[in-house]
Amino acid sequence: MTTTDDMLRSHPGDLAPLDEGALARCVEACLACAQACVACADACLSEPDDVVPALRACIRLTQDCADFCTAAARAVSRQTGADHTVLRAVLRACVTICGACARECETHAGRHDHCRVCAEQCRAGEKACQDLLDTLP
Amino acid sequence: MTTTDDMLRSHPGDLAPLDEGALARCVEACLACAQACVACADACLSEPDDVVPALRACIRLTQDCADFCTAAARAVSRQTGADHTVLRAVLRACVTICGACARECETHAGRHDHCRVCAEQCRAGEKACQDLLDTLP
Amino acid sequence: MTTTDDMLRSHPGDLAPLDEGALARCVEACLACAQACVACADACLSEPDDVVPALRACIRLTQDCADFCTAAARAVSRQTGADHTVLRAVLRACVTICGACARECETHAGRHDHCRVCAEQCRAGEKACQDLLDTLP
Amino acid sequence: MTTTDDMLRSHPGDLAPLDEGALARCVEACLACAQACVACADACLSEPDDVVPALRACIRLTQDCADFCTAAARAVSRQTGADHTVLRAVLRACVTICGACARECETHAGRHDHCRVCAEQCRAGEKACQDLLDTLP
Repeated sequence: MTTTDDMLRSHPGDLAPLDEGALARCVEACLACAQACVACADACLSEPDDVVPALRACIRLTQDCADFCTAAARAVSRQTGADHTVLRAVLRACVTICGACARECETHAGRHDHCRVCAEQCRAGEKACQDLLDTLP
Repeated sequence: MTTTDDMLRSHPGDLAPLDEGALARCVEACLACAQACVACADACLSEPDDVVPALRACIRLTQDCADFCTAAARAVSRQTGADHTVLRAVLRACVTICGACARECETHAGRHDHCRVCAEQCRAGEKACQDLLDTLP
Repeated sequence: MTTTDDMLRSHPGDLAPLDEGALARCVEACLACAQACVACADACLSEPDDVVPALRACIRLTQDCADFCTAAARAVSRQTGADHTVLRAVLRACVTICGACARECETHAGRHDHCRVCAEQCRAGEKACQDLLDTLP
Repeated sequence: MTTTDDMLRSHPGDLAPLDEGALARCVEACLACAQACVACADACLSEPDDVVPALRACIRLTQDCADFCTAAARAVSRQTGADHTVLRAVLRACVTICGACARECETHAGRHDHCRVCAEQCRAGEKACQDLLDTLP
């Protein structure tokens, strides 16, 4: 998805002091994590009757994570009058939520491939948000 | 909107140690704030040609705030396996974002009634999230 | 939630030929339906182990309905350069999705109060979208 | 973004009669379109003072399109108890909204590269939704 790069490059505003590469990686990681979480919640729900109940916490957390990663990808994409207080709050929340969802999915990763893939995307989202946070002045 | 109360009351899970009233007020305040922010961004955009440019930061922040308040209302509504680490991160981010959006809208409140109403809803969202945060063990 | 009315009244654009009352009712009904659907999906997931599997279709549809009603409330709230082709498409989709979700929730309404309340909100959302659709020229 | 393919492959449900490739392309096109639309709305808002007013309709439509493509990507990703009535309504709405947004962005594509890229993504979203619609029985 190089659309994110194309859009950042064609933005008339000045991204400085934000790092364009870190921004693009954060947006893409959040979108991929959100998508994996929506799909994992639904895949969990489709498991056999005697398996679904053990996945309740996973279905809940993947929904929360999908909602926040979607909101984060949007906020990070908006460069007009970037408010670092808001950006910092968004990224910190996303690091926490991605981490919590990753931990839950990792406990099911051995049995369910959708949880394994989702956990990886959550860890990637957590890292990309932390990396962008680290570049903020 | 007593639907929030009805839904919390009919939830089969145990809300304790969360306070049902604080939860319902937080959900409702986040939804009202998100709605005001969507409408305010659009109203700002409809102001006369020579006014819109001064409202750029407002249009940006109201969009961010709408996205996070929507995500927060959803996460706070989900009671299955409530994870206080996630809930705390969500509420803290919302307090910061609502506060930032309120400050921006307040600077335009004297001239634009949509900013005055939106600022009030942002302050109400900020307070309701902080109040729920204060009840968390 | 009179915030919707306040925001419509303070919008600098001209709402004509749209009916302000029908617009406000549609926004409020979509928001209430979205909120009920998020809460119902989560309440279904919290039912006993032997009950959850029968609620799979309900959990799925309430999530779809929550997502579309949220998007519809936002699009209907935006009055800048209102495009009736888009508004019509949004409202038609919402009528169909609210109706499908209502039918599913109604089959569980006798046993689960959250499904009963949610079904009522879906029917109200369906009606408010159809009513606004009927006022479009 | 092969995450979508990975997640569809690991879903315990049966996708038939839906075409897995068409599904994955639709999800990815909707996500890319939503992301381009969020970024285009913000880039439009960052244009010089005398340019922004001419982009009002574009800022409005890109926000509507972002919201519906995000909701569509989520609904199409959910395979549990797939309801073709809902899927059809979602895809039809998305075709209309992506098309309307593409037409608007195309009128600015010669002057603004962000509108050119966004228009391309909207056309890709429109096509992917129509292609999936054509495979529905």
